[in-house]
Amino acid sequence: MADPCATNTGLLRHAQALARLLQHAAVLPAEACAAQDAGGRVLAQDVLAISALPAFDNAAMDGFALHGEGQTLSAGSVLAIAGTVAAGDAPPAQIAQAWEIMTGAPLPPGTDTIVPVERTERVDARHVRLLDDVRSGQHLRRQGSDMQPGEHLAQAGQRVDATVQMLLAAQGITEVQVRARPRVAILSTGKELVDDPAVALQPGQIRASNGPYLAAALEEAGACVIAHHTLGDDPADFAARLARLAPDVDLILTTGAVSAGIHDFIPAALQAAGATRLFHKTAIRPGKPLLAAQFPSGALVLGLPGNPVATAVCFRFFAVPLLRAWQGLAEERPLRARLAADCQGRTGFRQFLKARVDHDAQGQLQVQVLTGQESFRIGALLHANAWAVIDEEAGLLPAGTPIEVLPRDAGGRWHFD
Amino acid sequence: MADPCATNTGLLRHAQALARLLQHAAVLPAEACAAQDAGGRVLAQDVLAISALPAFDNAAMDGFALHGEGQTLSAGSVLAIAGTVAAGDAPPAQIAQAWEIMTGAPLPPGTDTIVPVERTERVDARHVRLLDDVRSGQHLRRQGSDMQPGEHLAQAGQRVDATVQMLLAAQGITEVQVRARPRVAILSTGKELVDDPAVALQPGQIRASNGPYLAAALEEAGACVIAHHTLGDDPADFAARLARLAPDVDLILTTGAVSAGIHDFIPAALQAAGATRLFHKTAIRPGKPLLAAQFPSGALVLGLPGNPVATAVCFRFFAVPLLRAWQGLAEERPLRARLAADCQGRTGFRQFLKARVDHDAQGQLQVQVLTGQESFRIGALLHANAWAVIDEEAGLLPAGTPIEVLPRDAGGRWHFD
Repeated sequence: MADPCATNTGLLRHAQALARLLQHAAVLPAEACAAQDAGGRVLAQDVLAISALPAFDNAAMDGFALHGEGQTLSAGSVLAIAGTVAAGDAPPAQIAQAWEIMTGAPLPPGTDTIVPVERTERVDARHVRLLDDVRSGQHLRRQGSDMQPGEHLAQAGQRVDATVQMLLAAQGITEVQVRARPRVAILSTGKELVDDPAVALQPGQIRASNGPYLAAALEEAGACVIAHHTLGDDPADFAARLARLAPDVDLILTTGAVSAGIHDFIPAALQAAGATRLFHKTAIRPGKPLLAAQFPSGALVLGLPGNPVATAVCFRFFAVPLLRAWQGLAEERPLRARLAADCQGRTGFRQFLKARVDHDAQGQLQVQVLTGQESFRIGALLHANAWAVIDEEAGLLPAGTPIEVLPRDAGGRWHFD
Repeated sequence: MADPCATNTGLLRHAQALARLLQHAAVLPAEACAAQDAGGRVLAQDVLAISALPAFDNAAMDGFALHGEGQTLSAGSVLAIAGTVAAGDAPPAQIAQAWEIMTGAPLPPGTDTIVPVERTERVDARHVRLLDDVRSGQHLRRQGSDMQPGEHLAQAGQRVDATVQMLLAAQGITEVQVRARPRVAILSTGKELVDDPAVALQPGQIRASNGPYLAAALEEAGACVIAHHTLGDDPADFAARLARLAPDVDLILTTGAVSAGIHDFIPAALQAAGATRLFHKTAIRPGKPLLAAQFPSGALVLGLPGNPVATAVCFRFFAVPLLRAWQGLAEERPLRARLAADCQGRTGFRQFLKARVDHDAQGQLQVQVLTGQESFRIGALLHANAWAVIDEEAGLLPAGTPIEVLPRDAGGRWHFD
């Protein structure tokens, strides 16, 4: 009987393969973090306001604090000034007709109205005249009108950014619970790879680029790289590295040697190391040879194909969702953009295409699928800010069709420059 | 005669004030940076490919390398296999009918066609039969077909991200020229501010939140915070700090004490310290009291208003463009989004409103101006991912009108989660 998760290729669909992987992605433990060090971390707790903002009734303008008491104060009124209250002063105890007051200063007792200084005229050192009628209650900031104790100021699953830092500081909150950063090891395999840029290439050799890419992309996605090695094609060396790493990491990313060629030793090496296979090969392009497995320690392995674009696609559409789930981030929401030109789907495969998303003067997003989609071509990535997602049964999509797009950035942020 | 740069308020427009500031923002010096440490830095050089990618003709599939020579090879042909070439092997010297070949392996001499292994049948250890006609020249990756030496792989003014790291690594480029990070000091003023979260607030006091906000936002924008102090309202203390900092920084950000109140000592203190005023007060809301000045050392000062939302707006729409210019980043390009509801402009002022940009299934961007726009309200920032820009002469903008929006993030990246 046909696997209902498979496409007409007999391969597992992206959505089903990802779901299998995410079954093993329980959110990581929470840990305490000083607010000032929490930038980029994901909150493991809802953060509630502990005090009202503003903490006390205060003046929204420089001017005079008056007693309106629900009545309009008439133009021409002359009022006696008892003194001056500045921001940072305690509110005065004395009850008086008028106080000179600065923005942010606490309201003196009984006052409930601010008249801006430019709507007044000084009669003498102790008296002020109103130039216009003054509406009772104006230009105040009432205690708690911005935030009440117990209100959410940030939510679990939110990344701490400058705005969250502002809100935490305004509340005097110095420590928050954040999710542990996923711990990841990178093992690039292939005897063709040369790691040291100072070493000249011999015929048949290439520079290792997947490892540096993954290290930087893991950082963008909030993970910690705790090991990063380039290996040859020696299964014994590989198995030894795996055994050492598995107890200390959440994820091992390998690149290369994962297809069905005679040197593709990783599937067998993982099996020999006791890892349980979750899936091998999925109905995606590029990236079809992807392998996922789990060690008895719980560590997951993603065996990424060696072609750099296939590595990037498998990382973006399998590892990133996994890293998000571990950190307690919600599933990423794609944007939708209209195709700038016809696009031919590839029956049975979900395609992830190098693409450029832009926008017009009306705010309509448009996506251009770039030329040079072969998985060895990295030049086109320079112009891409997105991956266009073309589904398994898409067929021919005419120009103008809205499709899903995700940012190239592994942190899920869009750049439109 | 009226100043042509001023609006009907007599105040300098945002665009003109910013242009005055940017006249003093020559790009910062270039400095060498190891590629692996260059994440987030801005390139000060175009980076050119130094070698061809691929570096040599190689196989795009696992299979057999054959001699097509422009002719179709017929189904049923039986070819003698001379041996196997794997990725990382030097190309063999021997000329032969067929070589078993792995993805990424160099083409043996004279071969120009790859037949995938699944389109063949092994006759015996030394012979292979073609199952289909084979098109000459297929499944090759030609030397230089992705990138030629001298082609751009990254451009001056581009931030180094994971993709740039991949391209640099593929070329073996270990060092790049990047722009120096702007050096910035933060001086928050106001005797109402309490910096130490362990200290209980006295009546009239508030927690300092602008400093922590600016420190995090500066980091997002690529700057280095080299000093961060919270001061009272003592002009002498302030002047002493300025004198010490000015020679060592590109920018001093102050908050508070910049309006026309009796405790607003910063304009006079800057003048006394020998700084040349570039402008004071601009036709923006919030943020009208903003002051810009320059020290003889060249250091710029932005005197930001003390209200947190005014601080954030002045930072986003004056300091961020300045930090971009210093780093050699292009001027930021706003998105455009359609207003979800009518919006009333404020004649004579450019307004920057807390807003949420979202998108529909057709890829149309829409912007909702949030409630709670007063400049002391920070609660609404939690829901904002954008600033909506409403121009000086906008009048009433009906729902559906496309307007400019910029991301809340000081790094210029959009979050749509």
